[in-house]
This record gives sequence, C-alpha cells and structure tokens, in this order.
Amino acid sequence: MARVIFQPSGIGVDVPEDTLLLEAARTAGVEIEAACGGRGACGKCVVRIVAGQADGSPSLGVLTAEAVAGGQVLACRTRVPAGGLTVEVPDAAGREGGRIAGGDETDLVAGELLPRKWEYEPLAVKWRVRVAAPRPEDGLSDLDRLTRGIQSDWGPAPVHVPLNVLRTLADAIRAAEGLVTSTLIREAGALHVIKVEPGDQTARHFGVAVDIGTTTVVVQLVDLTLARILGTRSDYNDQIACGLDVIGRINYARRAERLEELRTRVLGTVNRLLLQVTAGAAVEPHEICNAVVSGNTTMMHLLLGLKPEYIRIEPYVPTVHTVPYVTAAEVGIGINPESWVCCSPCVGSYVGGDITAGLLCTDLATDTEEINLFIDIGTNGEMVLGNRDFLMTCACSAGPAFEGGGIGCGMRASVGAIERVEVDAASGMPTCATVGNVPPKGLCGSGMIGLLANLLRTGWIDAGGKLNRARPSRAIEVDGRRARYVLAPAEASGRDGPIAIDEIEIESIVRAKAAIYAACRLLLQHAGIGFEDLGHVYIGGGFGRYLDLEQAKVIGLVPDLPRDRFHYVGNSSLMGSYIVLVSQDYRRRQLTLAGRMTYVDLGADPGYMDQYTAALFLPHTDASLFPNVRSLLERT
Amino acid sequence: MARVIFQPSGIGVDVPEDTLLLEAARTAGVEIEAACGGRGACGKCVVRIVAGQADGSPSLGVLTAEAVAGGQVLACRTRVPAGGLTVEVPDAAGREGGRIAGGDETDLVAGELLPRKWEYEPLAVKWRVRVAAPRPEDGLSDLDRLTRGIQSDWGPAPVHVPLNVLRTLADAIRAAEGLVTSTLIREAGALHVIKVEPGDQTARHFGVAVDIGTTTVVVQLVDLTLARILGTRSDYNDQIACGLDVIGRINYARRAERLEELRTRVLGTVNRLLLQVTAGAAVEPHEICNAVVSGNTTMMHLLLGLKPEYIRIEPYVPTVHTVPYVTAAEVGIGINPESWVCCSPCVGSYVGGDITAGLLCTDLATDTEEINLFIDIGTNGEMVLGNRDFLMTCACSAGPAFEGGGIGCGMRASVGAIERVEVDAASGMPTCATVGNVPPKGLCGSGMIGLLANLLRTGWIDAGGKLNRARPSRAIEVDGRRARYVLAPAEASGRDGPIAIDEIEIESIVRAKAAIYAACRLLLQHAGIGFEDLGHVYIGGGFGRYLDLEQAKVIGLVPDLPRDRFHYVGNSSLMGSYIVLVSQDYRRRQLTLAGRMTYVDLGADPGYMDQYTAALFLPHTDASLFPNVRSLLERT
Repeated sequence: MARVIFQPSGIGVDVPEDTLLLEAARTAGVEIEAACGGRGACGKCVVRIVAGQADGSPSLGVLTAEAVAGGQVLACRTRVPAGGLTVEVPDAAGREGGRIAGGDETDLVAGELLPRKWEYEPLAVKWRVRVAAPRPEDGLSDLDRLTRGIQSDWGPAPVHVPLNVLRTLADAIRAAEGLVTSTLIREAGALHVIKVEPGDQTARHFGVAVDIGTTTVVVQLVDLTLARILGTRSDYNDQIACGLDVIGRINYARRAERLEELRTRVLGTVNRLLLQVTAGAAVEPHEICNAVVSGNTTMMHLLLGLKPEYIRIEPYVPTVHTVPYVTAAEVGIGINPESWVCCSPCVGSYVGGDITAGLLCTDLATDTEEINLFIDIGTNGEMVLGNRDFLMTCACSAGPAFEGGGIGCGMRASVGAIERVEVDAASGMPTCATVGNVPPKGLCGSGMIGLLANLLRTGWIDAGGKLNRARPSRAIEVDGRRARYVLAPAEASGRDGPIAIDEIEIESIVRAKAAIYAACRLLLQHAGIGFEDLGHVYIGGGFGRYLDLEQAKVIGLVPDLPRDRFHYVGNSSLMGSYIVLVSQDYRRRQLTLAGRMTYVDLGADPGYMDQYTAALFLPHTDASLFPNVRSLLERT
Repeated sequence: MARVIFQPSGIGVDVPEDTLLLEAARTAGVEIEAACGGRGACGKCVVRIVAGQADGSPSLGVLTAEAVAGGQVLACRTRVPAGGLTVEVPDAAGREGGRIAGGDETDLVAGELLPRKWEYEPLAVKWRVRVAAPRPEDGLSDLDRLTRGIQSDWGPAPVHVPLNVLRTLADAIRAAEGLVTSTLIREAGALHVIKVEPGDQTARHFGVAVDIGTTTVVVQLVDLTLARILGTRSDYNDQIACGLDVIGRINYARRAERLEELRTRVLGTVNRLLLQVTAGAAVEPHEICNAVVSGNTTMMHLLLGLKPEYIRIEPYVPTVHTVPYVTAAEVGIGINPESWVCCSPCVGSYVGGDITAGLLCTDLATDTEEINLFIDIGTNGEMVLGNRDFLMTCACSAGPAFEGGGIGCGMRASVGAIERVEVDAASGMPTCATVGNVPPKGLCGSGMIGLLANLLRTGWIDAGGKLNRARPSRAIEVDGRRARYVLAPAEASGRDGPIAIDEIEIESIVRAKAAIYAACRLLLQHAGIGFEDLGHVYIGGGFGRYLDLEQAKVIGLVPDLPRDRFHYVGNSSLMGSYIVLVSQDYRRRQLTLAGRMTYVDLGADPGYMDQYTAALFLPHTDASLFPNVRSLLERT
C-alpha cells in the first residue's frame, strides 16, 4: 500500500501501488473533475505533485512539457508509486465542487405542484411493532409473532419477510422487549418487510432521489420524516469514457462485457455520490430504504444491465418502459439491500423517466385546459406539449455542450463555474459571476447562454457565431483563422491557464440550441399550433439555480414569447424524483401521465433537418420568428 | 499452481500450492470420505502417495509411523507441494462411493402414497409462450409483450419478472421468432417468471430434492417431465468438523462468523453433490428450476444463515417454522438463481422438515383411523404417532452411530459398506455382504444392527453388549480389558487395516437404540396406548435400501410386534422432498400435517431418563417387553 495525501485538505488515503491518482482521490472522498470520464482527454483533473516521484509522461499531450516539469499531472493518467505522493488539488473547490450550487431547487418548482404535508407517503414506511414474547406453548416462531404484530395494525394481509431480514430477526425482537421498528412496503395487497430494527427508530427514515443523465449524475438525500433535502451531490457519469451520447453508449454496449462495464461505471458514480452525500449528513447508506431513479431510456437500461441495442435498431423497441420494482441489491445501489428501487417510467426509446419525472414539476401534470410546453435540456433534449386532453412528446440529440462536455473550459454548474457574464459593449471585456463567488474554474451552461447572448447584443459576435475581428478587444485573441474569446486570463482564473472559448466551441453551442428549438417547433407543428398559443413554457436542465431565459431567447434556444410565460424549473428530473420519493400519490400520477403520452419520432420527419439548419443562426435564420429579440438587437 | 493426479482414475487437477489434498480431490470430483469433516480424526480419507513429496507428519497419530513411511497420508491433513503429487485412492469405490446403493428408494414407499401422474405439478412449470413481434406503433416494450403472451394463456394475473430474467429478455424473444419457454410459478394470484429461454425447451425440466441431515446430506436430481429420478448423491455434511450433533452446531454458531462458516460448509456440501449428480446425468445446474429442501430445524436455520441459538435456550423458540419461499440466489444453492427454494415446514425446535417430509411416506399422512407410528432414525431420532384425529411428535438425541459417526469403521450405506452380517454360532466368525459386492470398506447402520442382533442370538455378546471372552474365537481379539470383534482382517478389507468394532463402539450403538426406543415408549404413554395398539410402524433412516427389521427388534431398537406391522421406508426425508418436488398438492398436505402436529418435550418429562436407562440392554432390561425376541433368543 502507498499513502497519498491531498492538499490543501490534508486528507490521506492508503491505496495499492499503481492505483490511478483519480481513483485514490475518489477513495479518499476528494473530488477531482474528470469530464471525459478518465480518458486523459479533457485535462480537467490536473493536480500538482508536491512530494514524491510519479511518472508525469502519460500526461503529456494534454499538459505542456513545462507544466509536467513543474509537477503538474493528470490525475487520471498518473499512478501512485510505492513511495506514495502528496498532491495539491488546484483549489479549495476541489473538495466541495460536487455540491451543485443551491442543490435544493425545490423553490424553482411552483409550490402548488409539490406534495403537501398530508400527501407525504414514501413507498417504504417505518412502523413501530410490539412483538409478543416467545412462549413454547403457542407454537409460534419469531416470524409468526412478527407477522401477527404487523397484522394487528395493518389487517390480515400476507406479510413477506426476505431472508436477509429473517437473519436479523431473532436478536432484533429480543433486544428491546419486543418493540421493533419495521420498514414496510404495501404493494398489491401484501406487506413487504424490508428491515426490522430493535426499539423505536421511526425518527431516522431516509430516501434518495437519483437523476442519471448521459453526462451528469445527481444524488439527493432526503429526510423522509419531513421531506427535507439533506444534501445533493453531482458528478460526471463515469460512462462518459465509453461514449459522449446515448448512441455512443449503445454502440459501446454491444459486447456483453462492455454492457457490464457501463453498468458498473454508472453504479460506481451513483455509489460514490451516495457515500459523499450520506457522509455529509451523518447518515449511514444502509439507513436509506427508499430510492427513486430517473433517467432516459438508455440510461435506465444501462443501469439495470439491460441490453440497449434494440433501442436504436428498428423498430426501436426497448426491453422495458415501466421498470418493475427491483431491490437495491439486484441493481447494485449501495443502500439497504432489500430496499425497492422505483424507476420513473419511460415512454419510448428516446423519451425516458427523466421526462416523466420532470413533467411533475410543471402544469402539464395538472388538469389544465391551457396548452403548455416542457423542454428538458440535457445531452438529449426532450419536449412535451399538451394539456389535460393530450400529451405529445419528442426527443432530439443536443450533445453535452450545456453540461460542459466537448467545450474546453466547460463544466457543470458547480462551485467555480461562471454562471453569468456581462460584456462591455465598448471594450468587449467580460465581467463574470461564479457559483460560490470563487475565482472562475470554467464556464457552465447558463454562463454559455449569457455569454453568447451578450456578445450578440454588443455586436462582438455575429448571427453566425463568428467573433468580431474588425474591432480590437483584449478579450478576443486571433490566431490565424481561429479566434477565441477570453473570459479570464490565467492569472485571474482558478485553474491552470486562461478560461476561453473558441469559435468551434461556440458552434457546438449553436448546434445544441438549434436542435432543441427545431424540435420544439416541429412538435408544435404536429399539434397544429404556434408558439403564441402556449400558456406556459417550462425549461428544465442542469443549469443550477440560475438560468436567464431572456438570454436564452436572445440566442434562439427558446421561442420569442413574453417573459412571464417562461418558468425555469432547474433539474426537473431530479426534482420529479424527489416528488415521487416523498409521495406515492405522485408516483401514481406519473404512471398515468406516462400512459397518456404520444411519442413523435422526429427522425422519421423529413422536415426536421430543414428546421435544424434554419436554427443554426443567432437567434434564427428567419428573424421574423424572433421579433422582440430583433428589436432588442436593433436597439443596442 | 501444482498438479495432482488421482489413481486409479487418472483424473488430474491443478490447484494452488498448499491446497489440502482433500480439497483438491473435491475440486477434481474425486470423492474421498471424511466422516469427521476434515478434522483429521476419523482416518477415513487415507490415500497413498505414488509420486511426489508431501509432508506426511500431520497424519501421524491417526496413521501409524509405518503407514506414513509407506506413503500413506490423510488427505485432510496433507498439503499439495509445489511439485505436485500423484496419489492412489484406496479402491475404485473412491470415485463412486457418493452414490447411495439403490439411491432410488421410491419402491420402499407404498405406491398408493406417491403422487399419480395426473398429480404431477412442480412449483415451477415450463410454458411455451408466443410473444408478438415488436412494433413501434403499439408502444409495447419487450416486457409488455411477454406479459401479454403469458396472460393470454393464464388470464389477467399480475406477471412478475425479476431483473436477472429481464436481462435475458431482449435476445430470448428475438431468437426464435417470438417463441419462448417461460418457467413460471403461480403463487397467491400472481405469476412469477423465473426463466425465459428461446424456442421450445419444455422437454428439459429438472428439480432437486435435498435432505440435509446433521451427519449426511443427500441430493437427488429429478426429471420433472416424468417425475423420474436421474441420480442421487450423498456425502457427509461438512459441518461435522464443527460439532457432531445439533447441540454442538448450535454452540459453535454462537459467534456470527461461525454461523456464516456453518452456512458456507453445508452449502459447500450441497453444491458439491449438485455438481456430481448433474454431471452424471448430463444436466447443467442452471437448468434446475425447482428445489425442495428438508432437514431438522437446526439444519434449516444453519442452511439459511438464521441464528439457531434460541432453539436451545428456553423457551426454545426458533426464528421460523415454515420458511417462506426464498430464491436459490438468496440461499446460495447453485441452481438457476431465480428458482424458489421450498423448505419443508418445521413443527418445533426439535421436530423439523425432515419429519414433515418423512410423514408423506407413511399412512400417517392419510385419512386413516388406525393409529400408526413413524420413527425417523438419524443423529436425532424423531417419532410421530397418530391417525386422522391426532398427531403427536417428539425427538431424542441418538448420536451419529447409525450413520457411521463415532464408530472407527463406521460409514454411510455407500459402496463398500457391510450391510448384512451373519455370525457363525460355533466359531463366532462373520460372513459379510457389502453394498456393491466389493471388498468391505466399513460398516453401515444396517450392518451394525445385523451384527449386534446376530452376535446376541449366537451368544457372542451378552445383553450388556460385552463380547464373550469365555469362548475362544478368531473374530474376537482381547487386549487387556478391551475386546474387539473383527469383521474383516486387513488383507480381506477394502481399506488400510482390518474392519473391527470394539466394546466401546458397541456401547454407542446400544445408547443410540436405547434413546429411540425410550422416546417411542414415552410418546405412546403420553397418548395412553401401548405398542400393541399400533396398526403400522414406519421406520425411516439413511440405511440405504436394506434394513432387517427383525434384527432391529432383536436388539430392541423397535418394539416387539409382528413382522407385518413394520415398514422400512428408507430415507423418508429425501423421499418426502421428492414427493413435494413433483407435486404441489403434497406440499399443501405437508403444510396441513405440520399444522396438526403437537410437540411433546421429552426433555421436560421426568420419566425419560428412566426409560432410557432401562433400554440400555439388548433387547431391554424388562425382557417382558420383548416376549418374541426372548423366546427366539432362548431357542437359539
């Protein structure tokens, strides 16, 4: 074993020789970003060696020879030598970057949509049971007496006790004179006992909401006695190393051992976040007896180890839409092994549980006559349009740009991310605000939208996304045919080097917004309505707490509607999971919604590519679609 | 790795250096007996080193220095050196000793008690399902279509598919144009799918009946399409090393890691026998989707990893009597992991599933007015008395003598066991018949009974079990105060040394028979009847196919009743398991029987020790209880 010490925290860990430094950091609970999933491509996991000898050469190519000579290495490429290492993680945010700024986004969802206190009803409930003392003359075993104790409160339903719980029973019911706390699930007329603890343990009752995105995974710990969020942690999905989008992952999974690798990778991410979020709240993972998981159809298949191949092969039929209850042990999630995992239902190959969860954060889940639109912006973009009479849905591939993927300085909306950017019209110079008010480490999705909108308004980029080379600005660096916009020079940035975005990266963002806008427009055409007919537009996505929808309108990501029609609901997949976690009634509503949704296949629609191409302008080729943005741009 | 070759079979195996030779043999599938569970105490695992160098000194004490010098070692005490070994297993029976002679004991059970063909109904059935082709427009997933296919035949019951089966679904339903074979369990109004295979696989449908005794474990493979027994294998329970009887095991299990050790040991035995019996019938273990397990209450607790401690602590209340269905994966039995394991119900701490299974082999399971007695002879002896109106039961500790435990030359009723012994009245010399007609390796329970009965009849032992020293016989060797009876000299025996039994060992057998007779007598007293009131007496036990009940009467193991009242039913725990395995209707009868049985605690009865002491004579202190035996003995 070799010892690794992480500075400035001073956290130490013993790992086998030759362990990757990135793994050592994860073992130690020290978070280091690895947007590329540890492939050595993104350069975000750079650390500096303070003491010890490590081979830095595998980091070359991404890091300069000077950087490596200065002790800098990629944590995902560097192995721990027998003598151990002391390394410095670039800034203090390294240890707390996993916490999404204001992870508690409940206040982004309209209060009337959230479950009321009297609706709190998690799948598994904790229940005090008084078990009769053992007596030979009644011929009752421990199990018989527990069963009778439960039935005396819950009626004569069959009581199921799995073997793992049976193994704890003899001692549990003898420890506190027969008083035990049973964790119970009532389902289809039967009672399932998933845990028995001695004494009264009803005060400690926990659940997790899990959002599995193609790019980002978020785990939220909830105290179920009060439906209170105790903590939220996010990280890149470790599957990224195997493909950036769902198609890449499906292709990767074609060999059985690679499907197993993908399954293990995403479980690794989920379980790592579980350990972080529980440690932060002084909860033991095995105390968690409820889990709700939402993700797109491919992510759900990969998490469960189901072959995803047929999702992308005609006729595009997945193994499951509505995943049956499965135990945490079967799935491999590191909570109480007998817990049932509740997966949000999928609607089709490309509209998954993230959308049926997200819908719960919008008026589309209510009995309204008004037609509303819900847009979920992730690596895939999904839209739902409808009211109480109909629900139509479609999906498009946006790519991971808004989550920091494929953008050199891109990052999630975690501490150090630039989330707002002002651009000085005269000088072109930026003013940045970061999550947590620390020196900037990178640019998150909301920062990208703000940056592009403000560059456009101030004339520093044109409608094609090209930087203005005609006017000199210290913020614009031109190198031959390539130009880049510098948000923070190396000396002002919280990372090794300047924070900048080049024109090719701007193109990625434009393509992402074009895919989403085109899909929305086509979905409305299918319904025979225009944007002006919409009552409300809900935007979900992993932008953290902050997304300026006026700016999103300026770049043509969302339609040009009055401000009050827009509602930013944050990570709606996570929040919908939270809602289902605290209230089974919402689970039933979710299943009903999923059953009502009609899937529109954009891939089969010849108009989609035209719409997409037309949207590859800021805000759009057809400026008449954005009259208010046009007059705004003309004014400035 | 080091290579070990076993002669005369020539079977070879590569094992890590320092592996115990006994383990290497098990890995290779070469059976070597180890009655003491590998503690180096019984000396039965002796092998001879033909090539290679091994340290024989750990075998000293049990083997003589000469034997060790001659290359003989105990397989349980000898480690494989880096250079490998070639060893000779004493006789050819070494490879087939695991097969109980005539393992198919169905013919010992009266035909009218066995399920009829129209009653064949295993817990899990195989069912051909035609799954509709995938079509995007119907919005049905693979799971939805499988569910509909099953429901079209079985009605609208909920269909449960566990995650392991879901993982195979996508390919299975596409492989044979939608034709699949589902293995289904119907339980409490729901359908559980435990396997899905492409095409028509209904012809291959297998189950196992498992009898877990304190001393012996038996696994029987059954072709469920015809209820035909394909093979039976038995071996000593690996737990023996941790205690010879249930009290010893319960004491051993007081620390959690030792309970886990006991669980792992018995699973090791079961799974080893499973591999042997399936290999012999060209069946893969994962093709087995039904299992019925019977054993006493302690054995069931240890198999399932349930704390057995409270079985022997007042008020003697175990964790379970009727074990709920558990999956093979939960238990750790190496068959299809989603198979449900059906455990025979226990009645009390000392009357277990072996008895409720055994009862099915007797008239006590039928609607008869006649009062019958069932005696199951094992390490514990259990009795059931009753008719259609009442069932009383009790248990006593007999010790492992009849299964070969604690007797130097004792062995199970496997190939090479002396199962019948005649004694020449004049010379005292024995004539032995062995299972499989091979040279004798040892003496099994039925041989012990025959030997003692014939020695008594011919006057070569007295009623106290002492050998007759007054008359000279070549078969009786006297060494100071100890005398022993030689069944086979070393040169005629199939093992290393003579086969003999001394007076101390004869005492063990007398104690075993006394415990059983005393318990029977007391149980009848509790019911207020005498032996003469019995219609039938059923004897069960692991004696193989052969038990001479007249001889059992002579030594006072069973009451002195006319011959036609006795029925030997063989290993009734195994046969009862077989019956339940092939017919769910008998499972229901078994549960009803278990519910009707009243337990009589002999330990709490002050008369038991008196009865026991009085029975420590051959046939009994009170000769008037055995009038026919007395006149027989007086005649000869």
